[in-house]
Amino acid sequence: MPTMKSWLPIPASSHFSLRNIPFGIISTAADPRHRPAVAVGEHVLDLSAFATGAGFSKLPTDLQNNLSVFGQTHLNDFAALGRPYHRAIRQYLQDVFREDTPHPDLLKTNDALQKEALLPLADAKTHLPMSIGDYTDFFAGRNHAFNVGTLFRGPANALQPNYNHLPVAYHGRASSVVVSGTPLRRPWGQALPAPGATEPVFRPCQRLDIELEMGMLVCKGNALGEPVAVEDAEDFIFGYVLMNDWSARDIQQWEYVPLGPFNAKNFGTTISAWVVLADALEPFRTEGLKNEVELQSYLKEERKDNILDVQLEVSITTETGKSTTLTKTSSKNLLWSWSQMLAHHTVAGCNLRSGDLFGSGTVSGFDAGTHGSFLEQTQGGKVSIKLDGGEERKFVADGDTITITGWAGGADGELVGFGQCVGQILPAIPRM
Amino acid sequence: MPTMKSWLPIPASSHFSLRNIPFGIISTAADPRHRPAVAVGEHVLDLSAFATGAGFSKLPTDLQNNLSVFGQTHLNDFAALGRPYHRAIRQYLQDVFREDTPHPDLLKTNDALQKEALLPLADAKTHLPMSIGDYTDFFAGRNHAFNVGTLFRGPANALQPNYNHLPVAYHGRASSVVVSGTPLRRPWGQALPAPGATEPVFRPCQRLDIELEMGMLVCKGNALGEPVAVEDAEDFIFGYVLMNDWSARDIQQWEYVPLGPFNAKNFGTTISAWVVLADALEPFRTEGLKNEVELQSYLKEERKDNILDVQLEVSITTETGKSTTLTKTSSKNLLWSWSQMLAHHTVAGCNLRSGDLFGSGTVSGFDAGTHGSFLEQTQGGKVSIKLDGGEERKFVADGDTITITGWAGGADGELVGFGQCVGQILPAIPRM
Repeated sequence: MPTMKSWLPIPASSHFSLRNIPFGIISTAADPRHRPAVAVGEHVLDLSAFATGAGFSKLPTDLQNNLSVFGQTHLNDFAALGRPYHRAIRQYLQDVFREDTPHPDLLKTNDALQKEALLPLADAKTHLPMSIGDYTDFFAGRNHAFNVGTLFRGPANALQPNYNHLPVAYHGRASSVVVSGTPLRRPWGQALPAPGATEPVFRPCQRLDIELEMGMLVCKGNALGEPVAVEDAEDFIFGYVLMNDWSARDIQQWEYVPLGPFNAKNFGTTISAWVVLADALEPFRTEGLKNEVELQSYLKEERKDNILDVQLEVSITTETGKSTTLTKTSSKNLLWSWSQMLAHHTVAGCNLRSGDLFGSGTVSGFDAGTHGSFLEQTQGGKVSIKLDGGEERKFVADGDTITITGWAGGADGELVGFGQCVGQILPAIPRM
Repeated sequence: MPTMKSWLPIPASSHFSLRNIPFGIISTAADPRHRPAVAVGEHVLDLSAFATGAGFSKLPTDLQNNLSVFGQTHLNDFAALGRPYHRAIRQYLQDVFREDTPHPDLLKTNDALQKEALLPLADAKTHLPMSIGDYTDFFAGRNHAFNVGTLFRGPANALQPNYNHLPVAYHGRASSVVVSGTPLRRPWGQALPAPGATEPVFRPCQRLDIELEMGMLVCKGNALGEPVAVEDAEDFIFGYVLMNDWSARDIQQWEYVPLGPFNAKNFGTTISAWVVLADALEPFRTEGLKNEVELQSYLKEERKDNILDVQLEVSITTETGKSTTLTKTSSKNLLWSWSQMLAHHTVAGCNLRSGDLFGSGTVSGFDAGTHGSFLEQTQGGKVSIKLDGGEERKFVADGDTITITGWAGGADGELVGFGQCVGQILPAIPRM
């Protein structure tokens, strides 16, 4: 790919190159209204102010009828306009920021609008990008499923019989999805005090874990009773975020049979603030993990490069301020593509809506340093992780901050990255 | 209780006596806007028109500041005002309709406003009463859990070890909750073709079942990370509906290990249209099923009459038009109260929002004719149910209509009922 240079200084290390143009919701100290924006290098473009200031005046007229979506407090209405509209707006904004922009008067030489609409990234407070109707968490990280299944049942029975046949998923909790930077309290809950115990105790979680995931946001809905075919599923994908699906393992272990995880997950799920559009990640596709079974027709895809290859890293920062990288892996460690997940989600008739969030399930490799959870990395809490600075961890401790980063590209062009997905764990609330 | 007579003729058999005053959302052929209403006998009072027509002019002034909630298209904003407000409005409306109303000029003798706001129930099309943020389905029907557990694991292991210790629940799908009267298509899905098979097939569901449940709607939220104490939980309850948690048993059986039901449930969940306020059911409380274990402190309730006693019936109407009553039971067949469910749901910090829906889990007795599902009534599909008219069923057939009704009272006062929760199953969509 030829580089895409901007008149705006964009550091080479920035996740928000001109190739990216991720969308989010911001507010500022000067203007507390929540409003759409894109991130470009070390700046954000306030789309509400940009639209008000005639920044979109060179868009084709028919596309200008929908600019009220940039006056909303979330991206749902923009997303619902569909992929061709996102594509047109993204390309238009790339044109606005190119060094050789065809419309320099819009922003490049328009100091007044720059002052109104182009703000330092550091001054923008980010919020949940969409109003999330339903959140579904898949379990598509087959290495993770295998690693965890091996811990509980041994390698021969690690994967459940259905695992390779369908994208296993459960309905998660939408209300407690929070944007990066939101601290979460260590949850209380029932757990068995020791292996073999039969009477639960009520206590703060003792095995608080992370799950490194990718998230996908749905742009438009289907009608109830009308499944989306796998070959049409891409049209329903708005874009992607990083996700930390915090998990209280001891609570989960006690509660999850037979209906799945509940309080072990619903105390909070963190997503990154900037939605990287599906188009922006289109150049970074690859083949995923090979499936061993013949798929049902509704899950069969024509294209082989159906999995995104996003580099993912997890680090921990303790209260001492010292940080340690825990994990380096890639989102290609998924068995199922987002299109397959979407086709499966709707195959019985379930309706999706703009703003629905899908989680991928934990992304892991097999080797040390590639695991997306403490559970895997510490072999179920048996082995400590040594952190820089001398501390050790089996699970997340109070005050720890977990940071996920993710990006694609870099070798032959600018980065298409997500920024960070950050969350700190606060101590459990006191109880009698 | 003394009877509460109205100047409006209310049949003795009506679920919507003056003791009830359930709230819903209606539209009419003449006015397609969705708007709040209450049901009274064979009429509805359009609260939008009633408010516009000064019907609330005798309310205390401070309560009149919030009347804009009756201009909304859902009840969330009304609900969020809290139990004291619901109570004041319900009592005010009871006063308006009483034979000895202190304010006859408001409606009793106000022909103009009657014409605007008092409409035949039969002319009102009902809609989902609330915008449902998250839907959680509990499993509090211990008899059902025991009956079904016995089918799969025998009576000694029927209940899972956690069952008596916590209100087991899973997150359901909010987008596909539909109002009574909405037909649903038989879902397609993966299932094992025979016991012992290991390769799934893709087909329309062959074991389509119902689950007789009560639903509860949350009126106001708690902050993330701040649990609701069981003794405060009543303040968060708006009211109740009937619910049919349709279940595709063959799909469920294949998909649900280890993360719980997904496509087996998310193709549709039906709730009744009229929300019976928590206050209206306050006189109909009783003790629930006795728990065999010592409860954790956060689940212990002072009051013993913590369970609602609502009479519940299920009937089936086949395409021949013939109806058969399948089930007669009571909502007192629950192990956990709504307050306990709510305390458990929030104990790890999960935040609730106005409009959240809780399902009770299937309500069943032990005897024939008291089961809330076909699965129990047909012993897992082994025994046919004989219907009036000579047909037989093991599960729901295409064209069948399932009707749930529920009510309290009647012996010493007027009925506090829910009307009906109705759904017809349409054939699966054709697929290649």
